Amino acid sequence: MTSTVDAPVSTSPARALVCRGCGTEFPLAAQHACYECFGPLEIAYDPAALARVTRAQIEAGPQNIWRYAALLPAGQDPAERVTLDPGLTPLVSAPALAAAIGLRAPLWVKDDSANPTHSFKDRVVSVALTAARGLGFTRFACASTGNLANSVAAHAARAGAPSVVFIPGDLEAGKVVTTAVYGGQLVAIDGSYDDVNRLCSELVETDEFEDTAFVNVNVRPYYAEGSKTLGYEVAEQLGWRIPAQVVIPMASGELLTKVDKAFSELVEVGLVEAPAGGWKVFGAQSAGCNPIATALHNGSDTVIPVKPTGIAKSLNIGDPAAGAYAIETVTRTGGWMDYADDDEIRAGIELLARTTGVFAETAGGVTVAVLQKLVASGRLDPEAETVVFNTGEGLKTLDAVADRVGPTHRIKPSLRAARDAGLLG
Amino acid sequence: MTSTVDAPVSTSPARALVCRGCGTEFPLAAQHACYECFGPLEIAYDPAALARVTRAQIEAGPQNIWRYAALLPAGQDPAERVTLDPGLTPLVSAPALAAAIGLRAPLWVKDDSANPTHSFKDRVVSVALTAARGLGFTRFACASTGNLANSVAAHAARAGAPSVVFIPGDLEAGKVVTTAVYGGQLVAIDGSYDDVNRLCSELVETDEFEDTAFVNVNVRPYYAEGSKTLGYEVAEQLGWRIPAQVVIPMASGELLTKVDKAFSELVEVGLVEAPAGGWKVFGAQSAGCNPIATALHNGSDTVIPVKPTGIAKSLNIGDPAAGAYAIETVTRTGGWMDYADDDEIRAGIELLARTTGVFAETAGGVTVAVLQKLVASGRLDPEAETVVFNTGEGLKTLDAVADRVGPTHRIKPSLRAARDAGLLG
Repeated sequence: MTSTVDAPVSTSPARALVCRGCGTEFPLAAQHACYECFGPLEIAYDPAALARVTRAQIEAGPQNIWRYAALLPAGQDPAERVTLDPGLTPLVSAPALAAAIGLRAPLWVKDDSANPTHSFKDRVVSVALTAARGLGFTRFACASTGNLANSVAAHAARAGAPSVVFIPGDLEAGKVVTTAVYGGQLVAIDGSYDDVNRLCSELVETDEFEDTAFVNVNVRPYYAEGSKTLGYEVAEQLGWRIPAQVVIPMASGELLTKVDKAFSELVEVGLVEAPAGGWKVFGAQSAGCNPIATALHNGSDTVIPVKPTGIAKSLNIGDPAAGAYAIETVTRTGGWMDYADDDEIRAGIELLARTTGVFAETAGGVTVAVLQKLVASGRLDPEAETVVFNTGEGLKTLDAVADRVGPTHRIKPSLRAARDAGLLG
Repeated sequence: MTSTVDAPVSTSPARALVCRGCGTEFPLAAQHACYECFGPLEIAYDPAALARVTRAQIEAGPQNIWRYAALLPAGQDPAERVTLDPGLTPLVSAPALAAAIGLRAPLWVKDDSANPTHSFKDRVVSVALTAARGLGFTRFACASTGNLANSVAAHAARAGAPSVVFIPGDLEAGKVVTTAVYGGQLVAIDGSYDDVNRLCSELVETDEFEDTAFVNVNVRPYYAEGSKTLGYEVAEQLGWRIPAQVVIPMASGELLTKVDKAFSELVEVGLVEAPAGGWKVFGAQSAGCNPIATALHNGSDTVIPVKPTGIAKSLNIGDPAAGAYAIETVTRTGGWMDYADDDEIRAGIELLARTTGVFAETAGGVTVAVLQKLVASGRLDPEAETVVFNTGEGLKTLDAVADRVGPTHRIKPSLRAARDAGLLG
């Protein structure tokens, strides 16, 4: 748009990699685990650089995640980005959904199915691959439950770079075709996502993959930061306010922690006032893969891996990397976690579609079903403003509802047939 | 966004309905054919009202089609809209696609798969249903080849209004489920789209459908205007310039005529300078349904209906309502038309995906394949800036490419298996 400015931001505000376990710092590089304690790393920022960011600067930026470039570890220079320009997806007002489930305060659906490859993964991939190119990587890869595969393959196609994507062999057809069509290498693994992930952790150490950035392995700290943009956008779209409650689906658990991190940063750097009662973060899992919610329910912060089952395949990470951090976030903010079984997930997809016009993939069904449970159980305050996150597109998981919905009438093309079918009263 | 203004525009600039055949004018109402000559009607505007519109006013508007409300027949007041807020979809630079097909000038893909229900139909439905509500209709309907069905059902769901959608019985599963999930009535007709359309023309005259707006029948003049927003956006996204060449898929032929109308209006009202050599409009059909292109190739402006076949179902209108107008537009601007067979369509989808990261439905494959033919035949100037329109989403027509693409490797989850498969050099 001619009305916006997408000029290079001076430099990255990222300062170091810091261990989430022991706090040791490392220089910015393609490193994902602490050399001291093997804990996961995340990006640490220069507080002075973050404090210089203004609302006006963000609002004048491009209509995508890069308006927040001054709060991200990479992508400050538009010319250096590897991106499909995701983000600034709709925040949909959902009064009919609120009424249906007994919420009496404003309810919003943050609809990330509107991203270029129709899931929130475009955000994390854009940040990871932009960082990866800056670090000298020339080939792009991932271990994926599906949406990430779509996104990495599409990003690589637009950038003209080779890609190699690893998926479990039993993925939904929508996600397989939507990766393969971009023409990179696509490796189906005879095993679960956790098996795929383990193999990628081994491949990344080989000489043959030295030039390859696995977005969620060796450049994971950058990748994870991309999820912060979901939190930034919700706050900006609410008129620079943080909602009282958010309900977020969990696979690795990382999305949930990063939305919370985004809210905290906005308050710290003075872009948003802290809401009086703080904000509560709620997590949603599928009953077929609920290790994080189960640990929380058991009063533990130790997540015991499970073998995932069920239709919410994009959430089927049985050994979630950020599970303990998700529990910490939910506990600290006064939220809760719950999970939904396959029938509840299907009903959640339909309820969301019928009340908002948003057709979600199974992960969205999980989140809506869990929202409903949290209201019913009294864990979620029905009088407080709530944002629920839909992270993917119903077209990718058609089978979930294909047996439940269809034409209400089948007739021949005549007025008489329409009358016989009751369409004319 | 807090940086934009979505305040009511004073009043609609629409002045009357005017017959495209004989020029007779009628008051604005739910009328779609001329009482004098039975010709189709379109919206006539107050030139003084259009002339008051400024670039600054548009640029300060919302990030969707309603930024152009002052150039549309309905939707001036945000509170009165029936809408999913479509539009402002990406204009994607496509240098690798240009190189692959021998274009040596800038090539852009206007990617309307980014709309809320992932086709350009959200634009026309938003304008049609907003006008319809203003005219007093309480139920929303359409005859559809699929994308329109998705859009009408989703719009009705968000608006909390009843819907009744008529589709041919053999539609792609993706389009059936994505309509049915919204919970309205969905009537599958044992016949072609043209049969469906005829039945709807009869139903609209019955007492039982008196309260029902068929977006592409009784409120068609409003509906068609929604397509103008595609032309406005392309010009604005190019920095208020009109490209030398546009390539547009044709079903009824109306989209093509309205993009041309949008360009003409922008020049007339002074928002854009007329390009030195004008602009050329090119039309794309599927070989299985090519009545408009065939008429042009035969030097005729009489479109002889056909019985459609082939995989590009969203373009399968055998008796296209605006065919003669499309021929007039293409002839007047010095463009041309061509068509692509099913294999060429599939190859077009893959070529677009691999070079741009955009996964199109079959209609997009048609357009890319025809673009390629137009360059090869010399009809399209390879030295002139070109915009090609992708009107829909690949996820809705997965079957088109599902047999052609898939995993490149299938292995067990071990380094040894990866080595045996050649993944380690």
